[in-house]
Amino acid sequence: MKKFINDPKAFVPEMLKGLALANPDTLTYDSNFNLIARADSPRNDKVSIVQGSGSGHEPAHVMVVGKGMLDAACPGDVFAAPPADFVLEAARRVKSDKGVLLLVNNYTGDKMAFEMAEELAAAEDIKVRTLFIDDDVAVKDSTYTIGRRGVAGNFFVIKAVGAAAEAGADLDEIVRIGEKVNSVTRTMGVALTACTPPSKGSPLFEIDDDEIEVGVGIHGEPGRRRAKLVSANEIVAELLQSVVSDLPFSQGDDVALMINGLGGTPISELYLLYGIAHEGLTQKGITVGRNYVGEYCTSLDMAGASLTLVKLDDEIRELLAAPAEIPVRVF
Amino acid sequence: MKKFINDPKAFVPEMLKGLALANPDTLTYDSNFNLIARADSPRNDKVSIVQGSGSGHEPAHVMVVGKGMLDAACPGDVFAAPPADFVLEAARRVKSDKGVLLLVNNYTGDKMAFEMAEELAAAEDIKVRTLFIDDDVAVKDSTYTIGRRGVAGNFFVIKAVGAAAEAGADLDEIVRIGEKVNSVTRTMGVALTACTPPSKGSPLFEIDDDEIEVGVGIHGEPGRRRAKLVSANEIVAELLQSVVSDLPFSQGDDVALMINGLGGTPISELYLLYGIAHEGLTQKGITVGRNYVGEYCTSLDMAGASLTLVKLDDEIRELLAAPAEIPVRVF
Repeated sequence: MKKFINDPKAFVPEMLKGLALANPDTLTYDSNFNLIARADSPRNDKVSIVQGSGSGHEPAHVMVVGKGMLDAACPGDVFAAPPADFVLEAARRVKSDKGVLLLVNNYTGDKMAFEMAEELAAAEDIKVRTLFIDDDVAVKDSTYTIGRRGVAGNFFVIKAVGAAAEAGADLDEIVRIGEKVNSVTRTMGVALTACTPPSKGSPLFEIDDDEIEVGVGIHGEPGRRRAKLVSANEIVAELLQSVVSDLPFSQGDDVALMINGLGGTPISELYLLYGIAHEGLTQKGITVGRNYVGEYCTSLDMAGASLTLVKLDDEIRELLAAPAEIPVRVF
Repeated sequence: MKKFINDPKAFVPEMLKGLALANPDTLTYDSNFNLIARADSPRNDKVSIVQGSGSGHEPAHVMVVGKGMLDAACPGDVFAAPPADFVLEAARRVKSDKGVLLLVNNYTGDKMAFEMAEELAAAEDIKVRTLFIDDDVAVKDSTYTIGRRGVAGNFFVIKAVGAAAEAGADLDEIVRIGEKVNSVTRTMGVALTACTPPSKGSPLFEIDDDEIEVGVGIHGEPGRRRAKLVSANEIVAELLQSVVSDLPFSQGDDVALMINGLGGTPISELYLLYGIAHEGLTQKGITVGRNYVGEYCTSLDMAGASLTLVKLDDEIRELLAAPAEIPVRVF
């Protein structure tokens, strides 16, 4: 295993400590709960937004805690849901009279942890709601999921509800916005290589030098099919076709287009993919109104990328364009 | 070779086209010269800043063209200096009564191209100066270099001269600032894996599964030594010791600390390294006044990282903190 690492068991806390040391004015860190929170939380004048999920997807979600995005994140270990008590503690720390929204990518483990935490928080009279994100079109059910998986599209839900919360929207309104953004967001990814979880020490799955996994999950779960490595043009064509036909997106639509790197793919290749996807959409009569190129939701050191489309309207456009201040720039 | 790529010969132009399509309001692209320029250039009220260098180091330098940073970049092919006529054309496009500064990382090929371009530009009555960056402490001479190499520290020179140019400083003053920042900037890197240039199609050098290259160059040039893979703590200790002792940085100094990913290393590992480096500096009585964690100057898909320190004073601190607007966020 070739990583910058000390003890694999300390990988997540050491990363979180580095993140906190790099952002002393804006973030706080509680190592007992893997808890990264805004330094200015709790704030009673806004709904608080919390996301957990496993680690290994950075910058999601600990690195998007900040003004206009998340109020707190409480990741589990690499590719593992956070314990319910991490989520409960996060909800306690950022609880607000206006309420707390728990965002959950749709995986069975995360769903269980968050639903239990929601129940426990409600028992403590914390006003709380939960919202599930499931933007991955690749497969219906999967290794760790009943229903669709939540992947890089979660960024758009976080950004939209974060902006609405900052603007003072109430909890019902924020849930409405989050569900709406999730309902018009679609993603599909492709892996060129497997990733290596620190505690495993070896690649998560076998893949030949001339193979790719089309529709891969962000924990290395199988996608639609194992295929031969083809050109960037052919890969983008397949991702676009799968994503566009799913909503479906159609001629005249204005969309946000995201090319998300899975961790081991350099930004040069991501811009190359972006150009192909932009032109492909233009040919379909779909306008790219906003674009996002970089790493948003990764899978450790996996070489690969995903393509996300969001159907824009005035409301979503405005929420995505609102200012935000987080450790890494992702918009 | 596992990359998102069509024809390897089209790798750079396809990346640049994607970059231009993603930034239609702020950037222009001329495919004849690999030329990415600010859409609002030339501007006669400021010195223009140009950087070429080979491709494969993205976001350096094409993705830091924008307000407060570069006015234009004209990269060569992957790891190849731009032809002198690319540099000359870039200087023509952004020429200003206040002058043009050409920034060059210290490699023999780049030096030749830029010095020839400077001569040709001067013959066309373009007011032009050239500044060399050589922040890498690893080795004195190297495969492609007489003297020290320019690596990720070039970001700080670009940021400082870009801010000074935006504030209206004249060419002499900007050269003074650039030389000053370069004189207090030191970097050393380490590779865990080799990178694969598109046209070669296979890794640039051999490295065993339990080996690292300490002091690696950003084109995969040999560093100080081949070593056994050790813990992140030990790697950071060696990088810090090499960098700190070189200027030297000493107790009471206020520094900018950058942990730069070389392309294939996920940001989780970079923050882990950051935490270790921050604590190591604190133990030495050196204060981290500004920090930078992410990809600034990469080596294609190489897994690895570099550590840069800049000695801060009021002038440099202010220039680094000045606003800038570029496609990717690197500060």
